[in-house]
Amino acid sequence: MIKVAILGGSGYTAVELMKVLLRHPQAEIVAVTSRQDEAVADLHPSLFRRLDMRCEPFDVDRLLKLGVQCVFGCLPHGASREVVGPLLNRGMRVIDLSADYRLRDPNVYAQWYGESHNDLAYLAQAVYGLPELYGSEIANAQLVANPGCYPQTAILGLAPLVAGHHIELKSIIVDSKSGVSGGGRTPKLSFHFPECNENFSAYNVGKHRHTPEIEQALSDVAGEPVEVIFTPHLVPMDRGIFSTIYAVPRRQFTESQLLELYRHYFEHAPFVRIRESLPATKDTTGTNFLDIAIRMVRSRIVVLACEDNLVRGASGVAVQNFNRMYGFDEKTALL
Amino acid sequence: MIKVAILGGSGYTAVELMKVLLRHPQAEIVAVTSRQDEAVADLHPSLFRRLDMRCEPFDVDRLLKLGVQCVFGCLPHGASREVVGPLLNRGMRVIDLSADYRLRDPNVYAQWYGESHNDLAYLAQAVYGLPELYGSEIANAQLVANPGCYPQTAILGLAPLVAGHHIELKSIIVDSKSGVSGGGRTPKLSFHFPECNENFSAYNVGKHRHTPEIEQALSDVAGEPVEVIFTPHLVPMDRGIFSTIYAVPRRQFTESQLLELYRHYFEHAPFVRIRESLPATKDTTGTNFLDIAIRMVRSRIVVLACEDNLVRGASGVAVQNFNRMYGFDEKTALL
Amino acid sequence: MIKVAILGGSGYTAVELMKVLLRHPQAEIVAVTSRQDEAVADLHPSLFRRLDMRCEPFDVDRLLKLGVQCVFGCLPHGASREVVGPLLNRGMRVIDLSADYRLRDPNVYAQWYGESHNDLAYLAQAVYGLPELYGSEIANAQLVANPGCYPQTAILGLAPLVAGHHIELKSIIVDSKSGVSGGGRTPKLSFHFPECNENFSAYNVGKHRHTPEIEQALSDVAGEPVEVIFTPHLVPMDRGIFSTIYAVPRRQFTESQLLELYRHYFEHAPFVRIRESLPATKDTTGTNFLDIAIRMVRSRIVVLACEDNLVRGASGVAVQNFNRMYGFDEKTALL
Amino acid sequence: MIKVAILGGSGYTAVELMKVLLRHPQAEIVAVTSRQDEAVADLHPSLFRRLDMRCEPFDVDRLLKLGVQCVFGCLPHGASREVVGPLLNRGMRVIDLSADYRLRDPNVYAQWYGESHNDLAYLAQAVYGLPELYGSEIANAQLVANPGCYPQTAILGLAPLVAGHHIELKSIIVDSKSGVSGGGRTPKLSFHFPECNENFSAYNVGKHRHTPEIEQALSDVAGEPVEVIFTPHLVPMDRGIFSTIYAVPRRQFTESQLLELYRHYFEHAPFVRIRESLPATKDTTGTNFLDIAIRMVRSRIVVLACEDNLVRGASGVAVQNFNRMYGFDEKTALL
Repeated sequence: MIKVAILGGSGYTAVELMKVLLRHPQAEIVAVTSRQDEAVADLHPSLFRRLDMRCEPFDVDRLLKLGVQCVFGCLPHGASREVVGPLLNRGMRVIDLSADYRLRDPNVYAQWYGESHNDLAYLAQAVYGLPELYGSEIANAQLVANPGCYPQTAILGLAPLVAGHHIELKSIIVDSKSGVSGGGRTPKLSFHFPECNENFSAYNVGKHRHTPEIEQALSDVAGEPVEVIFTPHLVPMDRGIFSTIYAVPRRQFTESQLLELYRHYFEHAPFVRIRESLPATKDTTGTNFLDIAIRMVRSRIVVLACEDNLVRGASGVAVQNFNRMYGFDEKTALL
Repeated sequence: MIKVAILGGSGYTAVELMKVLLRHPQAEIVAVTSRQDEAVADLHPSLFRRLDMRCEPFDVDRLLKLGVQCVFGCLPHGASREVVGPLLNRGMRVIDLSADYRLRDPNVYAQWYGESHNDLAYLAQAVYGLPELYGSEIANAQLVANPGCYPQTAILGLAPLVAGHHIELKSIIVDSKSGVSGGGRTPKLSFHFPECNENFSAYNVGKHRHTPEIEQALSDVAGEPVEVIFTPHLVPMDRGIFSTIYAVPRRQFTESQLLELYRHYFEHAPFVRIRESLPATKDTTGTNFLDIAIRMVRSRIVVLACEDNLVRGASGVAVQNFNRMYGFDEKTALL
Repeated sequence: MIKVAILGGSGYTAVELMKVLLRHPQAEIVAVTSRQDEAVADLHPSLFRRLDMRCEPFDVDRLLKLGVQCVFGCLPHGASREVVGPLLNRGMRVIDLSADYRLRDPNVYAQWYGESHNDLAYLAQAVYGLPELYGSEIANAQLVANPGCYPQTAILGLAPLVAGHHIELKSIIVDSKSGVSGGGRTPKLSFHFPECNENFSAYNVGKHRHTPEIEQALSDVAGEPVEVIFTPHLVPMDRGIFSTIYAVPRRQFTESQLLELYRHYFEHAPFVRIRESLPATKDTTGTNFLDIAIRMVRSRIVVLACEDNLVRGASGVAVQNFNRMYGFDEKTALL
Repeated sequence: MIKVAILGGSGYTAVELMKVLLRHPQAEIVAVTSRQDEAVADLHPSLFRRLDMRCEPFDVDRLLKLGVQCVFGCLPHGASREVVGPLLNRGMRVIDLSADYRLRDPNVYAQWYGESHNDLAYLAQAVYGLPELYGSEIANAQLVANPGCYPQTAILGLAPLVAGHHIELKSIIVDSKSGVSGGGRTPKLSFHFPECNENFSAYNVGKHRHTPEIEQALSDVAGEPVEVIFTPHLVPMDRGIFSTIYAVPRRQFTESQLLELYRHYFEHAPFVRIRESLPATKDTTGTNFLDIAIRMVRSRIVVLACEDNLVRGASGVAVQNFNRMYGFDEKTALL
């Protein structure tokens, strides 16, 4: 039984994580931290009589005393890089769901997040937590930078094509659509129900911070720089990310060849489902699956990839990483 | 052509009002006030190239200079009663969409709104702006207290029964359901999309401020005190209020007798539609209609009444009042 | 390990049941029947790579040969009573999610369902599957009539009051609101997205077939006839039932006395959560919990009860019954 | 006053059209045809007490006798081309909202619609009813083929770029998203509320029938063949279409140059709004506006265009065409 703590317990990724962990036979939540001094079940009434625990202030010594071995960080970026170092220094392992340790190059971080990174030592050690691509490093990592929600659909949706250099690497278009929970739990006008309900819009066109994350992982896969045009949109639904990806093939493919390519590439990935029919976010809601289909349209490749942004896109994949770090079956608590 | 101003231009009732007034052949919007120093179309992009006007601070002299004859107040309660007096003092007529002038008895106001009223003189002169019941007073009013959204469904849904003393006046249950726009445009956790989407809940059970407003109007109709148990609920949709009302009849009725009673009572009310089929909020969306059906269930009367909370429930009925105040056809700009 | 079959695999209760059972360590789905000759994962893409099985025609011999011990019936009423007898005759136990075996009195069935019941023998043996009230009979039942979705909120919401004869038994109002999945998976105009989205309506006022089911169970609890006025409404959301219940107390109560009464009554019911704060359907989504709060309003008791209509309201409680029937911990697969 | 008839009165474009026409001071609805022998207000309760008329069977003689001058066809494709000829033969003008007369080349029609066209004579005379591009032909047309919902966003979104040959004409990507009302009013599983609510999916990838319509109009604008990759998606909302369009410029542009280009191109188009901020479908809901914004991302042009699919995408633009055909101000009944 691994004792775990959750930092930043008031948001959507935290509550989703608690629900997954409550089903995990080898994990025990021993602490939830928050600046809000409330019972967890008051912040999240869905947990009433399921998790009887009070939020507490962040305190490394206290976590140590409680025997915490693994910490899940659900803090916003910026806040995360203030606390991860102290935890690692004291021997705990960390799965950080913020963006703070995802971008290997601190200059890229500074450019997209508008602040310089202050924890370069641990940044260099962090492993990008996408299990299908970095699975073996994750197993031994002390610090896992849990991947972003959008990037997973783009990276896994493109990896088989990029790995084989089957497509032009500089003309990739990722047109993504996300449910509103992706925007977090802090009330804002753009997420106010009567504003985003019955509405569809684009935001941060060409400027979204997940762009360099997608490019970093795909460049790793390609062995050379990859560039994407990434356009996020907001869908009036709670959960789900759907990415429609357009790529120019370097040689001719049939759809069945592409299907074969993808099936082979993800042969050992229990949570990536290569589908013949067109996917829909609802098929993945509440699960850790990432569904992919491929079409040829006018000699362009169109990849359609979707997932639940809170489970697969955040808290589910965090537990998948946890399972790999502690040698449990990758699927534990996730089916 | 009547020159009008709108106070508090940033919210939902204000933008709805502007849309209705832009269709009104006899009204000209000459000013929109707000603390937000922005173009109206920046606050409400739907008005881009429809209303090319900048919000301005509230200034009575300036409104006078612009020739404003009628002011629509879309301020929150409390704020409204600070500005209505000065406007009336300078000869403008006011249609106040806040709750500040609805409750005739300042003690009742103080009890439900938690503050004492500071404009007792004008409170005494205000006419409750429900045209189907107070139509002739409205025509001559200098100050109209535009009615609340919930109360209209309850009051008009019950008026024919209460007027004839056909029901017990102390055992009325009003179970109401509202779309989220009824909560206003200020971001709050309870109206954050992922909180209220795919959710149904009750709120302010037994404590909602529309209770005394319903009782005041129904007591006027009855000529004796009426009491209601009022339970509001939140529905995951933008607009619409639906009230299911339970009353104990004092004598036996058939459904067709009730239908006849209602049709006769509302014979001259162009916006009250007595229906044989069960109503649905969507039948009234974007309109000034209030739909009512009646059923007998186990010798209890069940009234079902619905409306669009922003049009009929606020801005549409405000223009209906405006039409009566200035002698225009009641339906102008509302069909 | 209990081998189970699911009859009528194409609908919402069936797919929900499969998801719950896939998590059950002591149940194995060995057959899914349907008139649709398709893979289960083609009917329900969410089950792709989770349940690799083809639907098959209903065939009692084949089910026996597969070793099926317990059958979950997800057929519509009318169809269910044609197949339950043959299954019981061959020694299988049945949990029937249709309405066919819920009403003890065949005349009441005929009156509300418009057809006479043709399986009176087994009707007489069926146990009403509401575990909190009929738990011990369920343990030994061969045939469990799984309860309706609405009735559970009404029955459990009222049981503590009715049991103690604390309220008038003939003046109870149950105003209920349900998500659209409650209407099943067969396309109909009233459940067509653009018809019911952004809409709230009542239906079957005073005529809904769950009325006698509510009254039967509450009369059992009271030991004398109970009558309710039941008004169902349709909410534009997938899941969730919320009932607002109005009762006239026979003596004075404070809210804290009522809270105490309810807590005590449901002391041993792990899935009934008595809450101080107002409940919301979303707190129960995807769970087997039924949440209840109580308020006093103008000396009337207002009970607010909600649940997930597909889990607690159908498939979750079916597994709770299964657990009781086979001696497993009641909560298995349900947390 | 022009007497008009509406064919196929039971669907969403028909009811939207009636609402627009009821506001039109120069149009009078004298007949609504449908195979459903019902009052219009029974098919569309929102029209109760607004349009007191019974649906009648289609009968050319009867329409003539009623004095109908202009017919709006809201029939499905296939059905429309059976009735348009007879109407034109008798001197009535027709605005056909189906797809039957949009594609000039009958071979293209046959290829995409799977049946050969049987009314080649009138097909050759039809004018494509996109007022911003074919405005002068529309004024004199006897038969207007009202444009498709998706195509308008793609065509107007690209016209300024294509007209000036500013982009590569064979590498255009149109990623479109539509609300569910675009799928019509006939119940189908894919539009069943619990299927498409809380869901986002793609459909007809590379195969949607609006593809040749987009290409035909853009080829007209370019004076040479244009090819698009068109991917439609379904959004869980009633109304709204949003197209994200990716084009490769032939020379460098700044965003402000593009803004200037678009503003100039649409200078005289009262319903095309060129916006600096990112558009959202809700800004256009219930209106005839089509909003466009342009961004440069990594030297690719990204155009964002949106509209209300039922008003601008169908019934509003039909009335805009009507206004041009009869010499009324283009904006009549549309603001």
